[in-house]
Amino acid sequence: MNLTIDREILLENLNVISRGLPSKSPMPILTGIKMEATDTDLYMTSSNSDISVEVLIEDASLQIQTPGKTVVPGRFFIDIIRKINSKRVNLYLLEEKVLVIKADRGEYKLHIMDYMDYPNIDFVTLENPLVLPSSVLKGLIKETVFATATSEKKPVLTGVNFHHSSGKLIVTATDSFRLSQKVISIPEYNDFNITIPSKSLDELLKAIDSYEEDLSLYFSMNRILVKYKNVLFQSRLLDGNFPDTSRIIPNEFPIIIQFNKDELVEAVERVSLLSPRDKEKDKEITYSIIKLSIKKDRIIEISTTNASIGDAKEELIPTDIETSNPIVIGFSSRYLLEALRSFMSTEISLNFSGEIRPFVIRGENDANLTQLILPVRMD
Amino acid sequence: MNLTIDREILLENLNVISRGLPSKSPMPILTGIKMEATDTDLYMTSSNSDISVEVLIEDASLQIQTPGKTVVPGRFFIDIIRKINSKRVNLYLLEEKVLVIKADRGEYKLHIMDYMDYPNIDFVTLENPLVLPSSVLKGLIKETVFATATSEKKPVLTGVNFHHSSGKLIVTATDSFRLSQKVISIPEYNDFNITIPSKSLDELLKAIDSYEEDLSLYFSMNRILVKYKNVLFQSRLLDGNFPDTSRIIPNEFPIIIQFNKDELVEAVERVSLLSPRDKEKDKEITYSIIKLSIKKDRIIEISTTNASIGDAKEELIPTDIETSNPIVIGFSSRYLLEALRSFMSTEISLNFSGEIRPFVIRGENDANLTQLILPVRMD
Repeated sequence: MNLTIDREILLENLNVISRGLPSKSPMPILTGIKMEATDTDLYMTSSNSDISVEVLIEDASLQIQTPGKTVVPGRFFIDIIRKINSKRVNLYLLEEKVLVIKADRGEYKLHIMDYMDYPNIDFVTLENPLVLPSSVLKGLIKETVFATATSEKKPVLTGVNFHHSSGKLIVTATDSFRLSQKVISIPEYNDFNITIPSKSLDELLKAIDSYEEDLSLYFSMNRILVKYKNVLFQSRLLDGNFPDTSRIIPNEFPIIIQFNKDELVEAVERVSLLSPRDKEKDKEITYSIIKLSIKKDRIIEISTTNASIGDAKEELIPTDIETSNPIVIGFSSRYLLEALRSFMSTEISLNFSGEIRPFVIRGENDANLTQLILPVRMD
Repeated sequence: MNLTIDREILLENLNVISRGLPSKSPMPILTGIKMEATDTDLYMTSSNSDISVEVLIEDASLQIQTPGKTVVPGRFFIDIIRKINSKRVNLYLLEEKVLVIKADRGEYKLHIMDYMDYPNIDFVTLENPLVLPSSVLKGLIKETVFATATSEKKPVLTGVNFHHSSGKLIVTATDSFRLSQKVISIPEYNDFNITIPSKSLDELLKAIDSYEEDLSLYFSMNRILVKYKNVLFQSRLLDGNFPDTSRIIPNEFPIIIQFNKDELVEAVERVSLLSPRDKEKDKEITYSIIKLSIKKDRIIEISTTNASIGDAKEELIPTDIETSNPIVIGFSSRYLLEALRSFMSTEISLNFSGEIRPFVIRGENDANLTQLILPVRMD
């Protein structure tokens, strides 16, 4: 193998490859990047237990003197290409033992790994794609992925469920204490019901961050493949039945309060500075419990009491309020803040159906996005 | 106590106070901020084992309705004032039990601590100051503090030594493997020889970051006090004799190589990506050992060999070179990078007096700044 390429093109592709590269692995060969140079193109592949990524470089700046195959130590290779500031880099194999990286007056030699050890990565067949604009897929992920479970108690809840049926795609994440759901219309595609690991979606978001055009999605029994530009990004799916959440979301809301989102976020952030920290077992995640109540003159109070430190309250004037009852409801401020940040709308509404029933957050300009939070009992 | 003040003024002063505030302390009262409102002014004080800070607020925006004294939970108070976005805040004591913070429609109550428990902080008498421009003191600290020891084996080496004698101030830091020294002229001040803990200097740098005018320094047997604007910043001094470093710095340099600093920094950063990591015992600090050698045509090679990964070399064309001998010298790339970053000069020189003798780095425009590094034996 001997090739020359613009450093910027190589780095751009390595940044995508890095999304599938484990820093450690029970299979050490997977900490390497597989490279295969044909007469005209360069393939690079990375894979961890969840994600596999392949890029095909056909760039005009790529000049292949000698085709060849190798596996190079992934992190070191990426770090070197990132730090180099020459325009061109030359990569070649020396005695099938080392990869030489030449750039201006610098020369780097990396012991290569055994190409034969690299497992065959089976990508989903490229047939019958579901084509989505990149912005739509990014939106679906950002609006839901934060609500997935971090605990492995019910593994299927660590992923986001994509359920397509009768022309509707329902995307749902829940950790049993809150739920995020977005519904969009996708007519004319066959039904599917899959759950994608949240880590895969986080990495996919980073990979497609600056990509604005259409993506093609391909499905198999246990994998999903996202194809865009010169990239194949594949994730395994989670086993298990995702719980049916259709009956959890209440339909009747006797109390609806509308807020300016930023005002509500700021008040909640301030009040939660003093809220008691309840740690999830064995986790460093804290749940700051705050209280929302309707006061006279339709003023809303957000408050918290912390026996050891003191207490806090903020009054808010809602932009609108429909109510037949007073209400005092306690919940995690972190859950509310994460839910609020998923809306593009400036105006959002909190929809209550009772002090111990889940409440729902909706946004004026976020059609079909539902954020639901279970309250905690206030004693 | 009952007072009103512009939030921005209060926050600016709290940011300085935070430099002396411990997050934890064997004396819990010290996690509080002492506040004392007289008829016209507000004093605030913080203290940890090394540093004590006092600010005196006489701002026009300060209106004191009722004088008083209290100690408030420091971190919570600062966090609240930071998050508030009202123009004014009102602070008052309720039944000598809680401090109430009112800002727009927000109300925060913090259980106060017992004022009588707060230890008396003894500040150095404000007599006979040494006056220095802020830029000079910042420079002295930044040029040396990184070379202090992190290990407590010889406690005095965890500080920076300021030795004034016969009109010269010699500022030195060393961890026994490298040394940073700056000499400036300070005529007409009495001699002193003190060692200031590096942590105190780090915090002082943050406190005076945006302050550009003169500072007054006051000394006592075991403390130094820096006074600027409305702030008193005091640090304890380290006990013990700082080692005499005058004979460590070589005088004769048969080999002097001049580099463009940025080119050298970039080459060293790249090569050290592959250098073997030698961990200091029980520490997470790594020493990447690299090698510098003079090649034919007066080209300088920076290189490293890593048995498990591969090797790296960069060739550099020095801007000038004086040599009577070839040299191959090994040293920590981290030490070299930290030393190089302390220079303002674009042109720096590496001055060698032998392969196993310490070498010295000087900068064209950094008069009287010496960075010295001990080489490691290359086997």
